[in-house]
Amino acid sequence: MPSYTAPRRDIQFVLREFLDTDTHYAALDGGEAAVTPDLLDAIVDNAAKFAEEVVAPTFQSGDAQGCHFANGKVTTPAGYAEAFRAWGEGGWQGLTVPVAEGGQGLPPSLGLCVTEMVGAANWAWSMYTGLSGAPVTCLLNGGTEALKARFLPKLLSGEWAGTMCLTEAHCGSDVGLLRTRASDNGDGTWNISGTKIFISGGEQDITDNIVHAILARTEGAPAGTAGISLFIVPKFWVEEDGSLGAFNNISCGAIEKKMGLKGSATCVMHYDGARGFMLGGENQGLALMFKLMNTARIGTALQGLAMSERAFQGALAYARERLQMRSITGPKNPDGPADPIIVHPDVRRMLMTQKAFTEGERAFLYWLAQQADLAMRGSEAQAAEAGALLELLTPIAKGFCTEAAQEVAYLGMQVFGGHGYIADHGMEQIARDNRISTVYEGTTGIQSLDLVGRKVLGSGGELLRGFTKQIHKFCQAWEGDAGMAEFVEPLARLNREWGELTAAVGEGAMADAEMVGSASVDYLMFSGYVTFAWIWARIAEVSLRRLAEEPADAAFYRAKLATARFYYQRLLPRARAHAEAAAAAPDSVMALAEDEFAF
Amino acid sequence: MPSYTAPRRDIQFVLREFLDTDTHYAALDGGEAAVTPDLLDAIVDNAAKFAEEVVAPTFQSGDAQGCHFANGKVTTPAGYAEAFRAWGEGGWQGLTVPVAEGGQGLPPSLGLCVTEMVGAANWAWSMYTGLSGAPVTCLLNGGTEALKARFLPKLLSGEWAGTMCLTEAHCGSDVGLLRTRASDNGDGTWNISGTKIFISGGEQDITDNIVHAILARTEGAPAGTAGISLFIVPKFWVEEDGSLGAFNNISCGAIEKKMGLKGSATCVMHYDGARGFMLGGENQGLALMFKLMNTARIGTALQGLAMSERAFQGALAYARERLQMRSITGPKNPDGPADPIIVHPDVRRMLMTQKAFTEGERAFLYWLAQQADLAMRGSEAQAAEAGALLELLTPIAKGFCTEAAQEVAYLGMQVFGGHGYIADHGMEQIARDNRISTVYEGTTGIQSLDLVGRKVLGSGGELLRGFTKQIHKFCQAWEGDAGMAEFVEPLARLNREWGELTAAVGEGAMADAEMVGSASVDYLMFSGYVTFAWIWARIAEVSLRRLAEEPADAAFYRAKLATARFYYQRLLPRARAHAEAAAAAPDSVMALAEDEFAF
Repeated sequence: MPSYTAPRRDIQFVLREFLDTDTHYAALDGGEAAVTPDLLDAIVDNAAKFAEEVVAPTFQSGDAQGCHFANGKVTTPAGYAEAFRAWGEGGWQGLTVPVAEGGQGLPPSLGLCVTEMVGAANWAWSMYTGLSGAPVTCLLNGGTEALKARFLPKLLSGEWAGTMCLTEAHCGSDVGLLRTRASDNGDGTWNISGTKIFISGGEQDITDNIVHAILARTEGAPAGTAGISLFIVPKFWVEEDGSLGAFNNISCGAIEKKMGLKGSATCVMHYDGARGFMLGGENQGLALMFKLMNTARIGTALQGLAMSERAFQGALAYARERLQMRSITGPKNPDGPADPIIVHPDVRRMLMTQKAFTEGERAFLYWLAQQADLAMRGSEAQAAEAGALLELLTPIAKGFCTEAAQEVAYLGMQVFGGHGYIADHGMEQIARDNRISTVYEGTTGIQSLDLVGRKVLGSGGELLRGFTKQIHKFCQAWEGDAGMAEFVEPLARLNREWGELTAAVGEGAMADAEMVGSASVDYLMFSGYVTFAWIWARIAEVSLRRLAEEPADAAFYRAKLATARFYYQRLLPRARAHAEAAAAAPDSVMALAEDEFAF
Repeated sequence: MPSYTAPRRDIQFVLREFLDTDTHYAALDGGEAAVTPDLLDAIVDNAAKFAEEVVAPTFQSGDAQGCHFANGKVTTPAGYAEAFRAWGEGGWQGLTVPVAEGGQGLPPSLGLCVTEMVGAANWAWSMYTGLSGAPVTCLLNGGTEALKARFLPKLLSGEWAGTMCLTEAHCGSDVGLLRTRASDNGDGTWNISGTKIFISGGEQDITDNIVHAILARTEGAPAGTAGISLFIVPKFWVEEDGSLGAFNNISCGAIEKKMGLKGSATCVMHYDGARGFMLGGENQGLALMFKLMNTARIGTALQGLAMSERAFQGALAYARERLQMRSITGPKNPDGPADPIIVHPDVRRMLMTQKAFTEGERAFLYWLAQQADLAMRGSEAQAAEAGALLELLTPIAKGFCTEAAQEVAYLGMQVFGGHGYIADHGMEQIARDNRISTVYEGTTGIQSLDLVGRKVLGSGGELLRGFTKQIHKFCQAWEGDAGMAEFVEPLARLNREWGELTAAVGEGAMADAEMVGSASVDYLMFSGYVTFAWIWARIAEVSLRRLAEEPADAAFYRAKLATARFYYQRLLPRARAHAEAAAAAPDSVMALAEDEFAF
């Protein structure tokens, strides 16, 4: 049975040493709760304990039991409801919600750190808490004071849960096709009718009420994405004082049989004149939803990190205990029948790959969350810079971290050999649970189009230059430094190539409109590898600085340095393969007629 | 519901045009059945129909039902037994067994072609037929005439099935650790005692008897792999006349709960003094098993092809019918609400990747099977050359084709978006069924050690030179040809780099014994990409030649050319990333102490 141990030391390294959060949090403005070092420690420790003791025990049993559907009711796995209640009672659901709105007022970066641990413990369970954040964010961005007072308290206390209702059977990536209708009751409420699919937590037996955030079209709304509005619609009507009223004509038609995340109920939801409230103005739904979506995309990138950590922990423990064959340099466990497989270089290659991606993901995503702190509570200049970085890097984070996590989960099974394919060890569950992360909240293809089309070329290269300038400055600062040369030289070269590749794609797009789409995923993957090279160079720099102080735990920093080297020597070479593929003319992708793919 | 259509046109292209099997089969010696063009057509057509009509209907239902275990008995999914009986009655089980031994006497390459189709229809089901081949091959290689007469007829008729029993709980890759014991009864029989795990078809409700091929140690046998013998042990005793006797103390203790291949019973088997016969001499077990294993490894490479074909078919059908968004160059389906997603370049990139790997796998594996024909029935010189190629290329085929198939299955789900994660469409089942292919019959890591250590460096580079010389000759033959330049130039360059990389790894290994293991998987992947480049250049050459004749089906050959270009422009650049990683010093892999991977 796999267990989960929160990586406290690495989290502390990233927060305190890599990101210097003590200074960062002290400087954050906004009249919210100050994050002192002690508070930070307390939150990390308590979240770690909650993840390990309350959530992790539901990981395998939740997968084995799954969700069940009968007579319109959904049964979730044993322990899910209790853990959700404990989560709400602990105040975790409102962690990053402003104090004035009833939350704890902590910065987004702390929420991310907590979500990593809870998600690694059991991502399927954490979906219920994550989706409960959807109506909360929608209300904070588009709700009146009255609506917030009506819905927020019980959403934050965990008495109610929430959903985000976007997809319909005929519209997934193409949200403009959605058909769910909203008709105006003239009394400030609207009646919603339609059917949504893939609604996580659309129905469950965990909370008394479920608050749905729904995209729908008002009568006469323009076609496509311009005619979409956002509504908040409870399963049971909510009176002005927050008490529960009648059933609101929201029913679950079925739940999906999925590859993984079996503890998370994925529902077909029917809205049959369900009454609700509009948030923001008419036809403003997509704009509001996009605010939520950027957070959700970083949240999904985080699934990549959470699953990577879990797969790495499992593989590492097994590699230390499984005895097979002898080290080529002589027995390392002479009294045993064979050596632990961690002595074998190819097993180490797999573990190092997992380690480089996992720790790189953590450092990258925590840094990105720090930008979210600044975008929300920094000075005007900080907020503008951080906002631009988030625009550019959110699709890279979502696309690259989830793709990298597929490889980490894959290697987790591979280290286990045949035993990885067996349910007992939990490694195949990690791969199944994680498989959806490159799909939902926008596939890697959608992220890539967002990156290349909207962000990079759409800003005339400005968003990208803002970031590559940072990398350039870093490289300049360490130019000529002997210890940093092995990182800085390739990084500077790839950073230049990023600009050249962008120019090539931009020019290609003028000649052939298909260039952007044909280059996009390879462009995103290239961008991800370079971004991670920057992250690992920065980690190396911090580690070298610490090592010069000859600390007692020097091994920790030497391991960071070794991992940075592994990343540069063994993973980073893939960047150029992606660049070459991205720069190719679109012809090789577009050459065939639709009926010429198979004969 | 996904259906399977055998890719008749591509199979015919590979056999007739790419491999010129008409000439090849006509020249094959061995006194066996001659494969005329008409016979070839009849076999391909009948196997295609069998796969589509008899096997494919069990694909999803077999996964949903799975196998069940109670009171020592295994229940297989509905339809499995009937399909197995039809398989035996159709004479398919003995297709490539010599006529003198009761088979059809057809060359191995035809067996491979049949297995592709049947395996693509339902790999889990085809495991029962594949494993039944294990005792057959063992008997053919190491059985006396009397033993063959006793066991072969009912194994070939499909009345009995078989297994291959190697793995024990504490020994997977490290077969030398096995403990199962054989004691001599002094009457030509042996008593086998021990427990094996991961025994596919170890127990089932399909056949009256099951013949186990078991590796075990005789008393006083040397430790390690030198002391292993091979036994054939039936579930029910088999009298000299082939009739069934008493229960032979072979029991199934449990079946595994696996990620996929749920219709294939993976059994824990207890042998409690089960009586059987030794094949070959004492301590000759591993040598005999290795003969079987080379076939089994190509058979597993074939799973890569089978699953790739299935994933490609599913994704292609969905991409043609799913309507989302408009083509960037204007609506292609103006009367519909959106265009089919096959118009979008990133969807095409995914489909072309699937097509390039799938068709490349087919051409490569069929060519390799043709080498197996020659090794078995060619002239002495042909047999020697083919044997050397098989030695070198079997681990590349097993490792590379199954790894590539992971990507093809992954993309199959990705094209489906969220629907790929749902069981209904069968795409996630393909990914689950296929996931074990890089593990069983030797993980990719084991294949890579075999390739670099035993085959390439172990032969002083000779085996590799035999192959790169072929590539070199091909490049020379087409040097200066304008149509072939885009393929021949990069191929010649990479072929040279293969030699250089080998020299670098060899030199590195002299300085540091860990070099081989740390380079091995990247070396194998590099080798695979170059081998596929050679395959695609040859396909391009055939296609250009055919196009010059202005055939009616020119679109087929233009599609081949376009796919070759796609492979060279978008996939082949990865070769250099693998070369760079493989050439890196082992330090980056070996730097950490065992307890420094996590803190």
